[in-house]
Amino acid sequence: MKPTVSSVIALAITALPAFAQDEVIDSATLREDARFYFEPIPQEPVAPEGNELTPERVDLGAMLFFDPRMSRSGLFSCQSCHNVGIGGTDGLEVSIGHGWQQGPRNSPTMYNAIFNIAQFWDGRAGDLAEQAKGPLQASVEMNNTPENLVETLQSMPGYVEAFEAAFPGQDDPVSFDNFAVAIEAYEATLITPDSPFDLFLNGDDDAMTDQEKRGLAAFINTGCVSCHAGINVGGQDYFPFGLVERPGGSVLPEGDRGRFEVTQTVDDEYVFRASPLRNIALTAPYFHSGVVWDLSEAVAIMSTSQLGTELAEAQIDEIVAFLGTLTGKQPEVTHPVLPVRTSATPQPQPMYAQ
Amino acid sequence: MKPTVSSVIALAITALPAFAQDEVIDSATLREDARFYFEPIPQEPVAPEGNELTPERVDLGAMLFFDPRMSRSGLFSCQSCHNVGIGGTDGLEVSIGHGWQQGPRNSPTMYNAIFNIAQFWDGRAGDLAEQAKGPLQASVEMNNTPENLVETLQSMPGYVEAFEAAFPGQDDPVSFDNFAVAIEAYEATLITPDSPFDLFLNGDDDAMTDQEKRGLAAFINTGCVSCHAGINVGGQDYFPFGLVERPGGSVLPEGDRGRFEVTQTVDDEYVFRASPLRNIALTAPYFHSGVVWDLSEAVAIMSTSQLGTELAEAQIDEIVAFLGTLTGKQPEVTHPVLPVRTSATPQPQPMYAQ
Repeated sequence: MKPTVSSVIALAITALPAFAQDEVIDSATLREDARFYFEPIPQEPVAPEGNELTPERVDLGAMLFFDPRMSRSGLFSCQSCHNVGIGGTDGLEVSIGHGWQQGPRNSPTMYNAIFNIAQFWDGRAGDLAEQAKGPLQASVEMNNTPENLVETLQSMPGYVEAFEAAFPGQDDPVSFDNFAVAIEAYEATLITPDSPFDLFLNGDDDAMTDQEKRGLAAFINTGCVSCHAGINVGGQDYFPFGLVERPGGSVLPEGDRGRFEVTQTVDDEYVFRASPLRNIALTAPYFHSGVVWDLSEAVAIMSTSQLGTELAEAQIDEIVAFLGTLTGKQPEVTHPVLPVRTSATPQPQPMYAQ
Repeated sequence: MKPTVSSVIALAITALPAFAQDEVIDSATLREDARFYFEPIPQEPVAPEGNELTPERVDLGAMLFFDPRMSRSGLFSCQSCHNVGIGGTDGLEVSIGHGWQQGPRNSPTMYNAIFNIAQFWDGRAGDLAEQAKGPLQASVEMNNTPENLVETLQSMPGYVEAFEAAFPGQDDPVSFDNFAVAIEAYEATLITPDSPFDLFLNGDDDAMTDQEKRGLAAFINTGCVSCHAGINVGGQDYFPFGLVERPGGSVLPEGDRGRFEVTQTVDDEYVFRASPLRNIALTAPYFHSGVVWDLSEAVAIMSTSQLGTELAEAQIDEIVAFLGTLTGKQPEVTHPVLPVRTSATPQPQPMYAQ
């Protein structure tokens, strides 16, 4: 049974032992505690609800993911902002999009995103298929329309055949909906098992160093786990940023009220989905604003804003060391060979009005 | 022995038989003629002069090729304009670069580029290593400096180790020169053997259809081969664009005088390297200006501007069919996992003054 958020908070505050910095950690006890809050990434991908991970569908999703012709300008693909070589992010504070516009928030990773409760920093997309439709249409990102997209796909026999194979028996397989479903199928395969943390969770005492284990204990005992729990060590629920103390304006810009824009509920002002921390050591810069480049600084900001405490430097180091154990085996990604355009394919429009 | 350009022209005009449209092609004779002008792409990569294709060096080159952090903004990598999934091009008229600036010329493919006499449309880089240094520094492209690049590479242990392994025994392996040499090594592996044309050259009569064979014969007999010869069916020498009749201003803009900018010699006004035609069916749009999207139209323009003749539509179709046989086996490219940045890594500067 998964603990509820409030039970997690209560447990974090009342029930768990604290480890002194030089204390020898009992791995069995720590593992038992950790398994209460976390789960390892599975070895094999799991099909999203209502989707199927057939090779044809996953391969089609890979083509769509890597194809810059899905954007109005012809420059941007999903890969542009969710780079498979950089932990699934672009390494920018905020992404650059159509016409060199900058997006409002830092680009989150698609690695293991299948395990998040919902997608985007504010959870406004219920699943990865819904998510995929967002950037494609956003004027500051790919700046495309469903109509222009489907016309593009329809114009290339390579895509028409791939959609027919991925969605057999459908009358009209080349559709915006199926575009999104195929990308969801591909992204569901982008998981990073076998991190040192997962190996430890699965019983290998030597997979983590003593410092990393102390960091894990601190992560649990100081209360980080109250928000960052579950399989993705985050991504499982929504919490106010600045729970105890609001961080400075550059970290938490006033204009971005987070989940409030989704629910229009005052309680959701400056509420965000807890950031999933898998592969966090690969995905600087941090926070939705992307202004913090150093993981230690990010942990320090979290401790004052969310926990209301200033952690000692050594403990921050331990927590950062633990976060490093969340780096899993990165998928081996083969770049797809993309279908060939025809004279019917809409031309890229880099200068299209935004 | 390879024919010289003038001998090629003389032969094309005087020595070769013309095939009527419905004539049955004798494959053996056609192959003999074709082997006089062309060579198949080899099965295995060949090391560029002064370079070595060690796995370490090729792997490093792949990392550098795919790493957007090599650009000032953090958005562009070599792959942005030389997409391994689109025949090695970006499918744009001219590439988009730093600050959404547009480059002056259409992006050529790096597939089989190792076999070109020199690099860029005007041949201003003698080899692929020299080429790689250009876009990195061009203000309208990656907008970086060698100093910022080397600082970036030095800051990441993953790169430092990879350079040491790729350039063993060197005192200072992380350098701008070695960056270029590693990319050259990687690009030398990006070749596309086993096209139908190559299979035909190598003795398989059935690898090409009769229409394609008639197209090959027409390509030789009408004189296309005078400029497009050698292993890359082009890319082997320089010729004036508009030899007989200058095409319209959008195809051959007056402001771009081609190789004249390199040599400052009047004879080189509007002279360009003959476009290598390998995989040409994958790499629309065409010409250095990138304004022609249709291969038939490109062939028609070439026939009037370079040959001074208007080819019949059926013959253009045959030549286009032949050009389709130049599509080789695209390399299976694994996207590299890139080294992790550190706090010493220079941050991307998307708003850096251009």
